[in-house]
Formats: sequence, structure tokens, C-alpha cells
Amino acid sequence: MTDPASDDRSPSLRRASRRALLTGAGAAGIGLASAFSATAAPAPTVGPARPFAPRPSSQSSMIGVPFEPYDEVRVGIIGLGNRGMGMLPLFDAVPGVRITAIADVRRERVREASDRLAAEGSRRPREYSRGPDDYQRLAQADDVDFVYIATPWEEHYPQAAAALRGGKHVGIEPPIATELDELWSLVDISEEEGLHCLLMENCSYGRQELAMLKMAHEGLFGDITGGHGGYLHDLRDLLFSETYYYEQWRRRWHTQHNRAFYPMHGLAPIAAAMDVNRGDRMLTLQASSTPARGLADYRERNVDPDRAEVWDEEYVAGDRVTCMITTEQGRLIRAVHDVSTPRPYSRINTLAGSRGVLEDYPSRIYLEPEHGDHQWQDSQPYLDQHDHWLWQDIGDAAEDHGGHGGMDYVLVYRLMQCMRQGLVPDIDVYDSAAWCAAVPLSEASLDSGGPVEIPDFTRGQWEESRPGLDSERAPLLE
Amino acid sequence: MTDPASDDRSPSLRRASRRALLTGAGAAGIGLASAFSATAAPAPTVGPARPFAPRPSSQSSMIGVPFEPYDEVRVGIIGLGNRGMGMLPLFDAVPGVRITAIADVRRERVREASDRLAAEGSRRPREYSRGPDDYQRLAQADDVDFVYIATPWEEHYPQAAAALRGGKHVGIEPPIATELDELWSLVDISEEEGLHCLLMENCSYGRQELAMLKMAHEGLFGDITGGHGGYLHDLRDLLFSETYYYEQWRRRWHTQHNRAFYPMHGLAPIAAAMDVNRGDRMLTLQASSTPARGLADYRERNVDPDRAEVWDEEYVAGDRVTCMITTEQGRLIRAVHDVSTPRPYSRINTLAGSRGVLEDYPSRIYLEPEHGDHQWQDSQPYLDQHDHWLWQDIGDAAEDHGGHGGMDYVLVYRLMQCMRQGLVPDIDVYDSAAWCAAVPLSEASLDSGGPVEIPDFTRGQWEESRPGLDSERAPLLE
Repeated sequence: MTDPASDDRSPSLRRASRRALLTGAGAAGIGLASAFSATAAPAPTVGPARPFAPRPSSQSSMIGVPFEPYDEVRVGIIGLGNRGMGMLPLFDAVPGVRITAIADVRRERVREASDRLAAEGSRRPREYSRGPDDYQRLAQADDVDFVYIATPWEEHYPQAAAALRGGKHVGIEPPIATELDELWSLVDISEEEGLHCLLMENCSYGRQELAMLKMAHEGLFGDITGGHGGYLHDLRDLLFSETYYYEQWRRRWHTQHNRAFYPMHGLAPIAAAMDVNRGDRMLTLQASSTPARGLADYRERNVDPDRAEVWDEEYVAGDRVTCMITTEQGRLIRAVHDVSTPRPYSRINTLAGSRGVLEDYPSRIYLEPEHGDHQWQDSQPYLDQHDHWLWQDIGDAAEDHGGHGGMDYVLVYRLMQCMRQGLVPDIDVYDSAAWCAAVPLSEASLDSGGPVEIPDFTRGQWEESRPGLDSERAPLLE
Repeated sequence: MTDPASDDRSPSLRRASRRALLTGAGAAGIGLASAFSATAAPAPTVGPARPFAPRPSSQSSMIGVPFEPYDEVRVGIIGLGNRGMGMLPLFDAVPGVRITAIADVRRERVREASDRLAAEGSRRPREYSRGPDDYQRLAQADDVDFVYIATPWEEHYPQAAAALRGGKHVGIEPPIATELDELWSLVDISEEEGLHCLLMENCSYGRQELAMLKMAHEGLFGDITGGHGGYLHDLRDLLFSETYYYEQWRRRWHTQHNRAFYPMHGLAPIAAAMDVNRGDRMLTLQASSTPARGLADYRERNVDPDRAEVWDEEYVAGDRVTCMITTEQGRLIRAVHDVSTPRPYSRINTLAGSRGVLEDYPSRIYLEPEHGDHQWQDSQPYLDQHDHWLWQDIGDAAEDHGGHGGMDYVLVYRLMQCMRQGLVPDIDVYDSAAWCAAVPLSEASLDSGGPVEIPDFTRGQWEESRPGLDSERAPLLE
């Protein structure tokens, strides 16, 4: 398999090239193509190194499948940029977890990570930095149980597929893949290998988000009618940084696609509160976009005139892309992505029902029958009362570790807890694919000018109620 | 003309009946039908009493047409419910304005209004309360220059048309009409009669909204990319009141239509800040709806089991209807209507551009280059600095009068000022029709499941820059 990182072509050129090399679309792909008429997405593709046979649906669904229990979880990390390097000490801090393998195209980053682990008294991991294909060796290593991927978006799919094919469970930074066929492919491979493939969705473990989920499940909002979430984060300075994103990969997406690149941080908690894939499912998506103004205007004022690679760019991604998502139960989710507008951070985090509303940024609540006079109330007592057991158990430690206020550690801890104790993961490949489908489907909707269908990755099992992020308390890890 | 208020059938039945009686669709109607393919709206209809001939476009546009100056403006009021009775003293308080005629189907309301005026030392107006058609006599009266309409929505169109035909300028509570053909018809009649017909859009005169407009025009937000506005007002208690809305008219709409009934309070200020009809125009509308839960859930808990007229109802209007509106300049407006969810009030009032954002509820601002660190700043200094001259001149008086914090008086004062001084009104029939088009078009979009076109009521003149709510200071009325 040609690795997308191995040349300096644009992500879309590399993608096209990779697609050309991939072969073996099967029955699942045909099913997809007919179920999803609104885009011209190619049929799902598979890696030629270990082609997987087409399968009829749901013969080996990963829904409700527990991890095999691990005395020790051996973690491999692919990608040691800002995110991977930040997550490294969190994995290292979880009892019974050892980082045994690390990969990055930059040898110095791998070395630095190893040094950091050694400085903490941990064993040095194996290092994989023989070039952009070296993650393949990590994927085949026999001392790794779980692979964590924190590379540029365009690398996620081939690396996740390789790790699954190598017999590892996989956790991937948002999104798990950027195209619909890739999402289907990861579902297929996960099922075929019987291994979990999931989105490392830290905001789903935010303290307020988890409390909102519990409040929703306890019926505080009555019949839930709608919710809003998103990712409003002014990243312009980082997008134009010459060093922050490896080879400035992230800004390039803004020159090639108009889509909601990364709305999962806000979308996933709302979807969870609505029991998406656990009694409801996302049905259609309709996207709207503002024009592309923020990046060009920032460049005009802030970028060195000598940086020709920047001044040659034309930005096509609208500053704000809004997805209106309907569900089978008739609910509505508004999922937003905006990293180009000068504004303070928000994930929106709003849930509404027939008995009340919770809004965030700032956090506030209104519930019947206790509230009245059309006045917002302080949400804190409600958040405290519905504090998730994870935050009760490890919240102090999480906050000590930092990492987005502690939710990074809660995410890592909980996932490792599920692996060590042989539990069903809170987030599965179906959740991950559904949430990430908003990324390519937002572009498909903008292209078509109307709503597009969201595939049912569960293959019909979305109707069954089952636990998710609102999980049963598990013993502390020791 | 059969009057819609003359029987007790439902609004839609009355409407259908009225339509059946109307005749004379002409060239303008044919133009509309072909320009607007997404709905099956009937061609524009006209009142048979004084049928108006079809006209080619823009022969007598009302754009930029000043009022003839009036030494004294003689006002007739149709509708003395909560709103009309509340506006009565505001008209009465404006220097050089006299209320000469009042109409309501309830004789006791007319009498009460007259008593109130007399108690203030004003002359008693003529009273029109000989039944639901009596507004027609007011429309023909020769001692009225301007008719203000504050009746149930379904009455607005026939009453406004009658007042225009009677030679009066007309101001109408939102919406000026509820159907697309009626909006076109009001544009046609206004042009034909050379009389202004405009929406009494009080929130467009809100102090923050006007300051936002001035800030937008001064370029503080850079290139404006998008804005959000709406009407989020928990009206459930009033909707179920047996007395608040005459014959409980407003709740009936929720049993017959799923649409954004009343989003103009939030939509209009955003459209103004984007210079809609003054360099930009609204192009398409795409609506989404949450399910109808709020009213039924409220009824279940709060309504007397003996009120059969209520318990027989089925609510079809989604609790929240969201309209995504594109503009010719590529901007995006999100306009929302929600009166059925338990929540505090908001008109959203958010405007964003390449240099910053203003958000309301609570009011806050972020602008470049002065702000940083991704932190909201207090908007008050900016609102103060960009305070509209109207609020500087009459803000104290407006606040003394009350009426939605003073903006009702600012609206009434400014309109009467334009009439007395012979000025061009800030809001014209094209603005009014465009904003109100979101009402029927939201339903058309929900029915079709995709975007629908918004007509260009200006017939091509939207591109010209011209003053609107950001008007030149005018002398105080004496």
C-alpha cells in the first residue's frame, strides 16, 4: 500500500492516488452505493495487502462485544505531533497500561517521546521512524494490543485499517476517516477482524456533557426534541503556523474542500443524549455554509509576504458550516464547524425538550416544573447532582493531569478500563462512523444543495436500547 | 369581500373560502408562479371590490419614495387586543399625531380605548365596531392618513389591502401577510396606489439591534459572513389562555401549519445589518423542524380536562423551526422560531464576520485587532459608542413609555416622524415582504424537504445601496 504521507502531493491528490491503488470492493460496497444515492462516492475500497472478503450484513456485529480482558494493555502510538505527544503521558499514567511502541515520520519526535517516558520511570518503547510507511511495522508488531492514532486526518483511514488488519484494537482522533467509503470500510474491517475501532472523542467525556447525558436519560428535559453542538474554535493562528501542524497539513484541507471538517466534539454528546444508535439514528443531513473569508482576511493582515506557499492558496471552505441532522425519532441536531471566525471558543452543547433546556457557553438551565419566570438558572447544582461516576472516581486525578480540563484523561482511563476489565466500550465503530459521516456528507449536501441520507452503519441494530457513555460503574484500576 | 373574521371556521377554512372568492390574478402572478417553482402557491389574488390591474415590473416602485409631509398624522387603529391597546398610548404620545379612528369586533374594547384617550386629554376617535367587516368603513374614512393593524395574523392581508385601497398608508404587526401570494399582492397594491405598506417591526428599533447595524456599516465585523436571529419565546401559557388571544386564534395556527410563524423579530435586524434589499438579497430558504411536543406536553399538565376545544386539537407545528437563508452575496442567515419550548426568551441577535462577532443573550463581543486571548468582551462600550441617533434623541422618553424596553415607542415615533417630515420610511414594503416570506416559505421547504427560492420583491432593485434603518438624523418632532 502506498502511504499517503510518503510524498508531498496535496491530500486530495494523494487520496486519489491511494484510491487508484486500492482494489476489491465487494457486496458491502454495492449495498452502500444503492443505499446512498445523494453522493457519487466510490464503492468502499480495501487494502490490497490483506484484502477482506465481502460479507453479508451483521454476521459479526461489534455491537455489545466486550474486549477480551487484559492484565496489561500494551499501547502503540502513531503520530507524535501536538496531540500525540500530549496524550502520551496520559496513557502512561493509567494503571496497567504500558506504551510499547511509538511511531512518527520525525525521528526526533520519537526520540523525545521515548525520553519523556524514560524520565517518568517507564520502559522505553520500540521506536518506528523509518519513514512514512513504518507505521505498518508497528501495526504488525506482536507486543501491541491497542493502537492510538493521532496523525493528520488523511492518514487516519489507512493507518486504522492497517492496525486492525494487524490484529489490534484501534482508537483514532477525530475523524476516524474522512470519506464515506472509508467509514464503511472501517466498519467492515472491524467486524471482520472482531476488533474494536473507535473514535477518541474526548468531549464525549466532558463533565458537563456526561451530566447532560444522565439528565437526558433521567427525563429531566421531557421528550427531547432537538440539540445543538459544534466546534467553534478560532484556529487561524495555528492554521497559519509554520510549525504547529506537521507540514501545515490542516490548512490545506481549507483549500480543497468545503465541509464540516470536525464537528464531532459538539455533535457526539448531543447524539449520545438522543441515544443515537441505541434507539434512534441519524437519518438525513442538510448543510449550509457561510463564505470563505476568515483565513484570507487573516493572511492579509498577519502572514509574511515571503511565504509563497501560503499566498498561492485559495480558501474554499466556508468559515462556518452548519449541518441540520434529522433523526428517525423526528429530532433535530444542529452541528456546526467554524475554525476561521475571530471568536471565543464554544462547543454550543445545547439540549432541548418538552420540559426544559440546557445551554452551555455559558452553562445555564431551565426546567419545568421547578423553574419559572422565563429566567435562566444556575446549572451547577444539576451538573453536580448528575455527575458521572467516572468524574466522581477519577475527576481529581484527571484535572491534575490537565488535557482539556481533564476529559482527555477520563477518555483514556475509561477506554483502558474497558480493555483491562473486559467490558464493552462506551463508543463503538458504529457510533464513530455515524458521527464522522457528517464530515463527508456535509460536503455532499453542499454540493447537491439539499439533504443527503446518513447511512445506517449498524445495519438495522440502531433500534435496540443498550448502554453507551452512560455506563455502569466499574472498579477502579489498580 | 367576505371577511375572514365573520365566521367561526378555522383560519385555513376561512382562508380557502376567501381565496375562492378572490379573482383577477394577472401578469405579476404569472411571473411569480414561474419564478417560484418550489411551492404550489396559487397565483396572487386580488380583492374583487376594487380589482387592480396587472402591471409590468417596477413602473412605480416604492423604493426611495418619501411620504408626503403631514402637519398632523391622523391614525386609525384596527385591532384593540393586547397589542393594539398597548400601542394606542404610544401613537397618542407622539407630537403631531392624533388617533382619529379605532376598530375592533368587540365594542367594549373600542369603548375602553376611547375612554383611555379621553382620560389623557385627547379627542375621542370615531369608533368602528359594527362587526367583523367594519374595518372596511375605517379603511374608507376620510379623516385617516395611516392605518395601524394589530389583529390576528389571518386578518392582516385583507385589512392591509383594504386600507391601501382606501388611500391610506399602512403599518402592520408581524407578519404583514401569511402567504406568498398575499405578500406579492401587497407589493403590487402598494406600488399601484403609491402608498407605503410596512411591517411594524419593533425589534428592528431595539437599541442593541440598531447599534449592531451601525457597527456592521462601519466595518467593525469585517466582511460579514453570517448572522442568526429568531424568536424564542415560551408562549405556552398565553397560547392556552382562554382570554389572552381573541378566540384563542394563535394556538389554532399550531394545529394547521408547520412553519416559522413569526421569526421576523430576529431575522429583520440581521437582514438589515447585511443590507438585504440594499446591496444584497435573500436567495434561498431551507427549513428544518423539531417534532411538535411542547404544546401537548403542556396541555397534559396544565389544561382543564373540561376544555374540549383544546383537547380535541392535534398540534402539527414543530416546537422549533429553523430557516437557513442564503443571500446573493453568499452570506448565511439562521432564522429560528420557537414558542413551545420551556426556556427563557431570546432573539439570538448574532452577527459574524472576518473581524469579529457580536452575540446577544447575554450580549458580548469579540473584535480584531483589539481583542484577543479568545475571551468575550463587554459589548456595552461598543453599543454606547454606536448608539443610534434615535435612541440618543428619544431614548429616555421611549424608556419612560415602556413597551418592550422602549423600542415600541422608537418605532412609532420614527414612523410618524417620517410621515410628518416627508421622509422615506426606514422599512418599506419590499423589506416587509422579504422578511415575512420566511413564514410561508418555511412551510414550503418543510413540505418539499429541500431549499426553496425567496422571490425578489424589489424586482431587481435590491442591488442599489440606499439608506434604511441606519438613517440620517432628523429634527425632533414638536
